[in-house]
Amino acid sequence: MALMAAHTIAAGEGQEAAVLLDRARESVDPELRRAVESLPALTRRVAMYHFGWEHEDGSPAAVGAGKAIRPALVLASARALGGPQGSPESVVRAAAAVELAHNFTLLHDDVIDNDARRRGRPTAWTVFGIPDALLAGDAMMALALRMLADDPHPASARASARLAACIVELCAGQQADCAFERRTSVTLEECLAMATAKTGALLGCACAVGALYAGAGPEEVDAMDAFGREAGLAFQLIDDLIGIWGDPGHTGKPAGADLVARKKSLPVVAALTSGTGAGEELAALYAGPMTGDDDVRRAARAVERAGGRDWAQAHAGDRMGRAVQELSRAVPDVAAAGGLLALAEFVTRRTK
Amino acid sequence: MALMAAHTIAAGEGQEAAVLLDRARESVDPELRRAVESLPALTRRVAMYHFGWEHEDGSPAAVGAGKAIRPALVLASARALGGPQGSPESVVRAAAAVELAHNFTLLHDDVIDNDARRRGRPTAWTVFGIPDALLAGDAMMALALRMLADDPHPASARASARLAACIVELCAGQQADCAFERRTSVTLEECLAMATAKTGALLGCACAVGALYAGAGPEEVDAMDAFGREAGLAFQLIDDLIGIWGDPGHTGKPAGADLVARKKSLPVVAALTSGTGAGEELAALYAGPMTGDDDVRRAARAVERAGGRDWAQAHAGDRMGRAVQELSRAVPDVAAAGGLLALAEFVTRRTK
Repeated sequence: MALMAAHTIAAGEGQEAAVLLDRARESVDPELRRAVESLPALTRRVAMYHFGWEHEDGSPAAVGAGKAIRPALVLASARALGGPQGSPESVVRAAAAVELAHNFTLLHDDVIDNDARRRGRPTAWTVFGIPDALLAGDAMMALALRMLADDPHPASARASARLAACIVELCAGQQADCAFERRTSVTLEECLAMATAKTGALLGCACAVGALYAGAGPEEVDAMDAFGREAGLAFQLIDDLIGIWGDPGHTGKPAGADLVARKKSLPVVAALTSGTGAGEELAALYAGPMTGDDDVRRAARAVERAGGRDWAQAHAGDRMGRAVQELSRAVPDVAAAGGLLALAEFVTRRTK
Repeated sequence: MALMAAHTIAAGEGQEAAVLLDRARESVDPELRRAVESLPALTRRVAMYHFGWEHEDGSPAAVGAGKAIRPALVLASARALGGPQGSPESVVRAAAAVELAHNFTLLHDDVIDNDARRRGRPTAWTVFGIPDALLAGDAMMALALRMLADDPHPASARASARLAACIVELCAGQQADCAFERRTSVTLEECLAMATAKTGALLGCACAVGALYAGAGPEEVDAMDAFGREAGLAFQLIDDLIGIWGDPGHTGKPAGADLVARKKSLPVVAALTSGTGAGEELAALYAGPMTGDDDVRRAARAVERAGGRDWAQAHAGDRMGRAVQELSRAVPDVAAAGGLLALAEFVTRRTK
């Protein structure tokens, strides 16, 4: 399924991105695992399960983990800005810290959103209960910020402060997302601001942390943050499309999951605010219980007919364009940014 | 009610501690409030309510806040170690950060423990819902660690790393506390370890942060941490006594609240593991639903007859003795430690 068929991408970029993601996972995973294994027993057990390294009973597992997009962005950003300063382990630890912070949000969001499945298996709170999942998430956030604050790299305290500020923004984004569920009308502008806070902020922070570890100056760091935010918004738009039209076999989630939950995702809000008959039909479906598969299929078709699907795909392309502009402020020869563009393009072509 | 009647305390110390707590609140509150006001709108609202600065509808309030024990310990520790280095605002900001981290744990623990009241009014989650209370807590923790990581003081990154490590310990302590509720038997040793993690760790961290801001060396910082931990355990023992015999008019909680929740608090576990008939009677009461006031009164009497009350009071005194020993490693002339001892003694004599 080519979600971004209209967006021309060099054939090699998808492969380059896949290699970068694999390499990031390979270098960051041991550091991440070491960090998680340092947690106190009860917290560790939840985290080991969440990362797919243990089964429910504590026996070893090798369940497919996340896509390592954020660690790959940290590492690629550091390389694009002249390579990491200091010991090579330092930037890998920073990448692991960012991934740990991301996974704290997943643990808490699954509780808050009442999501029962993630990465093809039951979410941690359904297995260990809400208190243990929340406390494991709390501990993971604290550990992530500690890994940065404790690091000998000269920019590590700034990176820790930046990640902490980003986490405040992530919380506000998730809170806005929850508030939108309760409201009958949400503007597209509000929805874009929410997605920027909820998703863009951490991708931006990943790029900024990479730049900090390369010894970049404040302006370059901010430009890298802006690059990550724009790419992050493109990422979220594609994620929202997958939430409606993604293949359950790929995503590990039921088809139309976001519609069943009546999520006010970006394509949905674009449709609801389109002023079309299909938009009104969607609003009527969202006002009801929407339990059956037929309702979900009708809602998906309404989003499409109201232009929500096309808009989301086109807007993801726009955001990628802005991302490239921001990147050029930090790295004048964008071609030299190597994997960064490939990574950014990759996330807008993924199907899961 | 003199919970520590057997423990001789100079008459002036209670007054000195009260003055120190008042002064800490006066200097730290504006900084704390500034920090909370910097949070994004939805998160800020929950935090402003939680701290007693706003009513549920967002109108200004001046509800009695917490006791400011942790900020007072940060400030008194910095003074005891020669006074804070750098700008005087720096250590006040550090004290505010520690208090913010403490309040993050209160917000989350109230959700996890299903507690409906705090400081004489409904808990934040009962007012704003669980998602908003959790996310406000998350944001408060991140903000606390950011305030330290961002500070120009030369020891601020170390203080941030130390507070983050402490938060991991607090989470493990709360998790153990929850696990104990589900278990039929818990040893006194396990219970003391849980209380050290859940309460001692943050009081120790407060003292360590104060020492770091005074430019103290690693050994002094560790000794101050150990002092705070021992005093913190005394604090928890008294807290547990108040949870059973505290005056609802003072505590803002119903009488025997911890017994109704069948909490395995320290005096309760001391009674349950006493090998006495009263201990068995308590175990039988804890095995049942324990709904009526009569059951609660019988349970309280059983704890007392099994020796749990006396043990907790005596052990609080022992811990205070150890605290003084630890303090003398960092401040050889303990008398010069000024308010620190007064504060430590104060928390073992409080009634709410």
